[in-house]
Amino acid sequence: MTGPLIEERTTVDLTNVQHSPMGAHASFTLGHAGPHGGLGLGLAGPAGQSVYVAVEDAPGAGTYSALPFFTADDQDDPLARFQGGEEARPPVTTGPLTALPADRVRRTLDAVTDRWTAGTLDFAVHSPLGALPEPPGAGDPDAGDRDADPALRLAVLPAVLAEFTVDNTAGTGPLRAFVGYAGSDPYSGMRHLAAPALTGVAEGIRTAIVTDAPGARTAIGFDIPFLLGDGRGQGAGFGLGQTGLLVFEVPAGERRTHQLAFCFHTAEQVTAPERCRYLYNRYYPDLDSVAATALGSFDTLLTGWRRAVDDLDATRLSADRAYMLALAIRSYYGSTELLEDAGGRPVWIVNEGEFRMMNTLDLTVDHSFFEARQHPWTLRNVLEQQLARYSYRDRFGISFTHDMGVANVWSPHGHSSYERPGLSDCFSYMTGEQLLNWVIAAAVYTGTGDTAWCAARIDTLRDCLDSMLARDPGAAGVQTEDSDLVAGGAEITTYDSLDTSLGQARSSTYMAVKGWAAYRWLERTLHLLGDTAGAEEAGFRAGRAVKTLTASVGADGTLPALLDDPDGARIIPVVEGLALAHLTGTDVHAEPQLTGLLREHLRTVLDSGRCRFPDGGWKLSETSDNSWLSKIYLCQFVARALLGLPDDAQMAAADRAHVGWLRHPTESRWSWSDQMIAGVAAGSRYYPRGVTAVTWLLER
Amino acid sequence: MTGPLIEERTTVDLTNVQHSPMGAHASFTLGHAGPHGGLGLGLAGPAGQSVYVAVEDAPGAGTYSALPFFTADDQDDPLARFQGGEEARPPVTTGPLTALPADRVRRTLDAVTDRWTAGTLDFAVHSPLGALPEPPGAGDPDAGDRDADPALRLAVLPAVLAEFTVDNTAGTGPLRAFVGYAGSDPYSGMRHLAAPALTGVAEGIRTAIVTDAPGARTAIGFDIPFLLGDGRGQGAGFGLGQTGLLVFEVPAGERRTHQLAFCFHTAEQVTAPERCRYLYNRYYPDLDSVAATALGSFDTLLTGWRRAVDDLDATRLSADRAYMLALAIRSYYGSTELLEDAGGRPVWIVNEGEFRMMNTLDLTVDHSFFEARQHPWTLRNVLEQQLARYSYRDRFGISFTHDMGVANVWSPHGHSSYERPGLSDCFSYMTGEQLLNWVIAAAVYTGTGDTAWCAARIDTLRDCLDSMLARDPGAAGVQTEDSDLVAGGAEITTYDSLDTSLGQARSSTYMAVKGWAAYRWLERTLHLLGDTAGAEEAGFRAGRAVKTLTASVGADGTLPALLDDPDGARIIPVVEGLALAHLTGTDVHAEPQLTGLLREHLRTVLDSGRCRFPDGGWKLSETSDNSWLSKIYLCQFVARALLGLPDDAQMAAADRAHVGWLRHPTESRWSWSDQMIAGVAAGSRYYPRGVTAVTWLLER
Repeated sequence: MTGPLIEERTTVDLTNVQHSPMGAHASFTLGHAGPHGGLGLGLAGPAGQSVYVAVEDAPGAGTYSALPFFTADDQDDPLARFQGGEEARPPVTTGPLTALPADRVRRTLDAVTDRWTAGTLDFAVHSPLGALPEPPGAGDPDAGDRDADPALRLAVLPAVLAEFTVDNTAGTGPLRAFVGYAGSDPYSGMRHLAAPALTGVAEGIRTAIVTDAPGARTAIGFDIPFLLGDGRGQGAGFGLGQTGLLVFEVPAGERRTHQLAFCFHTAEQVTAPERCRYLYNRYYPDLDSVAATALGSFDTLLTGWRRAVDDLDATRLSADRAYMLALAIRSYYGSTELLEDAGGRPVWIVNEGEFRMMNTLDLTVDHSFFEARQHPWTLRNVLEQQLARYSYRDRFGISFTHDMGVANVWSPHGHSSYERPGLSDCFSYMTGEQLLNWVIAAAVYTGTGDTAWCAARIDTLRDCLDSMLARDPGAAGVQTEDSDLVAGGAEITTYDSLDTSLGQARSSTYMAVKGWAAYRWLERTLHLLGDTAGAEEAGFRAGRAVKTLTASVGADGTLPALLDDPDGARIIPVVEGLALAHLTGTDVHAEPQLTGLLREHLRTVLDSGRCRFPDGGWKLSETSDNSWLSKIYLCQFVARALLGLPDDAQMAAADRAHVGWLRHPTESRWSWSDQMIAGVAAGSRYYPRGVTAVTWLLER
Repeated sequence: MTGPLIEERTTVDLTNVQHSPMGAHASFTLGHAGPHGGLGLGLAGPAGQSVYVAVEDAPGAGTYSALPFFTADDQDDPLARFQGGEEARPPVTTGPLTALPADRVRRTLDAVTDRWTAGTLDFAVHSPLGALPEPPGAGDPDAGDRDADPALRLAVLPAVLAEFTVDNTAGTGPLRAFVGYAGSDPYSGMRHLAAPALTGVAEGIRTAIVTDAPGARTAIGFDIPFLLGDGRGQGAGFGLGQTGLLVFEVPAGERRTHQLAFCFHTAEQVTAPERCRYLYNRYYPDLDSVAATALGSFDTLLTGWRRAVDDLDATRLSADRAYMLALAIRSYYGSTELLEDAGGRPVWIVNEGEFRMMNTLDLTVDHSFFEARQHPWTLRNVLEQQLARYSYRDRFGISFTHDMGVANVWSPHGHSSYERPGLSDCFSYMTGEQLLNWVIAAAVYTGTGDTAWCAARIDTLRDCLDSMLARDPGAAGVQTEDSDLVAGGAEITTYDSLDTSLGQARSSTYMAVKGWAAYRWLERTLHLLGDTAGAEEAGFRAGRAVKTLTASVGADGTLPALLDDPDGARIIPVVEGLALAHLTGTDVHAEPQLTGLLREHLRTVLDSGRCRFPDGGWKLSETSDNSWLSKIYLCQFVARALLGLPDDAQMAAADRAHVGWLRHPTESRWSWSDQMIAGVAAGSRYYPRGVTAVTWLLER
C-alpha cells in the first residue's frame, strides 16, 4: 500500500472531496467545515448536510468531539470559527457535541483514501478506483451471462466505504462514538435499516450509512441535542427528524475499527424523454442490496481500489500535483452516470458538474485521456451517442452538439441544451470546436487499440475532414468562417465566458493548433485506411496551419490570440493542441517549427508575467482574470513534457498557487472546480474536468 | 353550475389553495403573492416556485401583466409590495413582467374551482371532487377487469385542470399570453413535452403543465427577463434554466379559452421498507399519459367535478363557512396518497400535512366524517392497516399507534414514528385516545352501511372495550390510568402541544365525553352482535361517565378540563364527544343530563369570554393561546346542531375571525392550517384535518 500523497499541514485542509462511486452520479462529500457535505445523489452540488463523525470525550463523559462537518447551534457558518484566526472564537458546538479544533486534526488524501485523524478517532473514507468493465447490452450474445461478471457487478456498486476507528485502549469504561448525517431529500424521511448482518440509517430509498459492526445501534431524531441531550430511551420506532446516527460502543482497553458503507440507490427511470435507469439496477434492486454487497465485499473492494492507487503511481508527482490529481479524479467520478436505456444498452454520461449538462463534448475531449487509461469503452460509448443522436449539419457540413441535454433531460436530437442563435458569447454555437473535439476524442479512443472501430467510421472521419476544410475556405489551415447557425452572432469556444481572446472561435490561434492536431491524426489515419486524397488534404492543411501560425508571430516572439488582431491579447492555450497531437500519436518533435514557436511563445508570456497571476498561478489570457484549471493542467503538461520548460521553482509555485485556489476558505466547499476568476472558483464548480491532470503521469 | 361561494372582496384574498388530485400527495398551489406556490409532489409544504399567469399589456406591447405569484427582480418578498398600504410602493416586476395590483384582481373559490379575473385575463383552476371508487386488489376475482372501470381510471388521474382565457376582442393585433412555472426539483431539469395533440413544459419526470391549444409554443430559460427580454429566437433545443412557459397568441377580435392540465407523476416505489407505488401507475406509466388523459377527458372530468360541487350543496352555508370548507377539502386531498403494495393491494394514506406522518389516527377520526361521505372504503382501508400492523398491547390491552410512519417511511409494526417513553407532553404516547379513535372511526365506517365488516370484527371490538375498561379500574367511566409505555411520563391527547388542560389524557373531561360516545356505540353494537355482557358493561360505563361528569360541574355550571383539578382550566372540546356520538348514530338528546350540562358549560365559557380570543374566534382552552381550527369546526357543529346554541352574530363573528386566521398576511401561504397560536398558524400547516367542517352540511 502506498503512503499518503500529501504531506501533513499545520492547518488541516478543509477542501470538500467527492467520495464517489463510478457511474452513480453520487458523492459522499466531506471536508469543508459546516453543513456543506453529505450524501448527494443526482445533485448540482454538495448535499449541504451535516455529517457527524464523533467520539465521546472520555468513557461516560456524555460530551463528544467531532470532525467539524455540522451545523452549530447558533446557525452561524461554523467555518470561520473552526478556522480560528487571531481573535479567540468560541468553539463550534451543538448540545453536547463540539467540533475538534483545526490544530488537533490531521488529514491525508490520495485518489482513493481520505483519512482524518484526531486523538482517539480515525476516519478513513475510501472510494472506487480501478477497472470498470464494459457491461454487455441486452442484445449482446453474452447478455445472459451478465451476472457472471463479478468484476462488473462490484465496479458499478453505488457505494463508498469507510473505516471508523475508535481507540479506547487507555479507557477505563466503554467509550461511545457515532457516525451519521442529517438528510436533505425533499421527498423522504429518515429510517432505520436492519437486515441480517447489517445495521444502518437511511433517507427514504436513496441514501444510507450502514455497518456490520456487532452491537451498533441506530438513532433518529431532530438534531444532536435531541438525540444525545437527555439520555432517555427513544422508543423502538421513533422516526421524526432528519438526523440519523449509527452509534458504537468500544469496551475499555480496546481499539476497534468499524467498517461502514455509504450507499446510494434509485430505481427510477431517471432520464426523459428517453427513459434510462442506472445500470446497477441489474444487480441491486434497492439500497439494502447495495449495503449488503458493500459490507460483504468490503475487503475485496478496498484491496482492489488500493491496488489501483498503486497502479496510478501518483507518488512520483509532487505533493501538490498528487493532491490536485486525487481531488480531480474524485470529482470526475462524482459526475459520472452509468445508465441503461429501455433496450438494455449501456449509456455513459459525464455530467457537467454543477451545470449538469450531459456529455458536454468540449469536456469529453478533456476526459478522454483519463477514460482511455481507465475504461476506454466509456469514451467510445459517448462518441457513438454523439454520432447517432447529437450530430448535425450546418452549411459547411457535419458537427456535433455542445451537449446532449441537462439534468437528466435529453435534448431534442441534433440540438444541445446550451446553444442559441444570435449570440457572440455565452450560449452561442461551438460548431467548429466541437467538430475538432469529436475527431480528437475519437483519435484518443482509437489509440487505445480499437482500430477496427476507427476503420468502420472512415466515412464519418472523411465527413469531419470535409467539414473542417469547408470552414477554412481560404485554406489557411484554421477556421475562418462561422456556422450559419449563429444567425448574426459568432461562434465561441469552450472558454465561453472569457473575452474574445479565447472566447472567439474564428481565426483563433488556439483553434489553429487544435485543428493542426486533428489534421495530423486524420492524415495518418485516412492514409492507413486507404483514403489517400483525404490524407493528403489533411496533411496539406496541417502544414498550412503551421505556416499561418508562423507568419503571425509577433516581434517579441509571441503569437496573438486572434490572427486578425496581431497586437491583441496573448494566451497560454495556444499550446494546448500540442498535447492533443501528442496524445493522439503525433510526434510533435517532428514539427520543430511549430514546437519552436510555441516554446518561445509560452516561455515569453510566462516569464514576462503577462500570463501569470500575482500568486504565481497561470493566467490563460492576459486580458482576462478568467482561467480554467483543467486547461492549465493540460498546458503545464505541454510546457514540461513537450516543450521542455524546466520543472523549476516557478512551476512549483504555480502548483502551490493552484492548490491554494482549490483550498479557498469558502469556495473549496465545491470540491474540484474549473473556472477561476483571479483564483476564486466562480463557475464550473463540483466539476469533472480536472482529470486532464492525468497527463502529468506521462511526464518522465 | 353553482355560483361562487365567496363574495368578491375589495382586497383580493391571497390565501394559498392546494389544487390537488385525489390520492397523489400533490398540489398545484396558488394564491399567495410571491414564489410560494407551484407544482409540489410529495412535499411538506408549497413547492416555493414562481408561477406565471400573464397577458401582454396590449397587442405588440412586449410588456406583460401577471397574477402576482412570482419572484421580483430585487428578491424582496413581493407580498408586502403587492398588498400595498399607506405608503406608495413600486410595483412587483421582473424584466418586462409586472404583477397586477390587488385592486385589479377578483377571485372566487369553491371546493373545485379557484377563479382569478383581471382585465383581459381569466384563469380558473379546477381540481377533483367526487367519487373515488375502491380499486380492486391484485388478488380480487375482478382484478382482471381493473381497466374496465373508467370511473376509477379518471378518479385517480394525478392532474388538475385549468382554463386560461384571454380576451382580445378589443385588440387590433395578436395578443400574447403565457402560463408557466419555475421548477424546484433538486434532481431534474426542465424540458419541452411534445406529443400528438399536446404541448407542454415539464420538470423531469415528475411535474408538467400541458395544453392542447393549437399553436401553443413552449419556452425554457433562466428567468422571465431571459425568456422575454430580447425577443430573439431560442434555438430548437435550449434547455438551461428552471423556468418553463407555455406561450399563446390570441388573434385580434377573439376571446379564447385555452385548456390546461397540471400533471404529476412518479413511478418510484415511494415507500420503505414496505414498497408501495402510486396506484395510478396501473393506468398511467408516465407524465405523458397523465397529460393525454387530462386533456382528452377535460370536459368529462370538469363536468363531474362541478356536479360534485352541486352535490356538496355548500351554497347554503354562509360565505365564510363555505370558504373554509372549500379550502379544507383542497388541503385534505393535497395530503392524500393512494398507493398499491407489492401484492397490488390498495393502500390509502392521509399524510399529516407539513409533518407528513402517515395515517395519524387522531386525524383519521376527524377525517372519517368526510371520507364516510365521499369514499368510505378509504376509511376502512386505514382501519384495517391500523389493525393489522399498527395495533399493539400494553399492560391494559389493545391500542393503536399514533401513526404508521413519516414521509413515506413506514414505522416498525406496532410502533409509531412519534411516540417515545419518558415524556409528559409532545411525543409521549396517546394510547388511551387512539384506542377511542379507532373505535369511533370504525363506528363511523360501520354507519356507512357495512355492518358485515363490523360483525366480522366483534372480537376486536370486544378487545377494545376490555382495554377501555382496564384503563378505568375505578369504573368512573373515564380513563384514570396511563399506559405503562409512558415509563414515568404521562399519556397525552391529540392536543399534544397544549398545556395539561387539553394535553393530559388521564382524568380528562374531553376524553370522558369521547369515551362516553365510544361506550354508547359499543353498547348498541355489541348488543346487536349478541354480546350482551359486553353491551351491558359498555352501557354501564357510559352511564358512569355521565355521572362522573355531572358530579364535576362547578358552581358556575362549567366543567373543569381535568377531573382532579376542579378549579382548573375550562375548555371547549369537552363537548366534542357529542359530535362523535351523534355521527356514530347515538341519539344525544336521549341523554338530556349530559347535553344539558354540556350546553350550560359551552354557553358559559363562550359568553363569559373565557374561551374566546379578542377577535371573537374560539379559544379551545382558557389557559392557552393554542387552538386547533379543525376541532373548533367540530365543536361549532356541536354547539349549533346538537346543543342548540344560536347561529347568531357572535357565531358569524367567530367565522369571520377564523377566516382571518387563514388569511394571515404571511402564514396563509400554508393554505389550510390547523394549529393556531392566537390566530397565527404555528404548526400543523398545509394540513388535511379541516374537513371536520363537512359536519356543517348536516346542520338544518
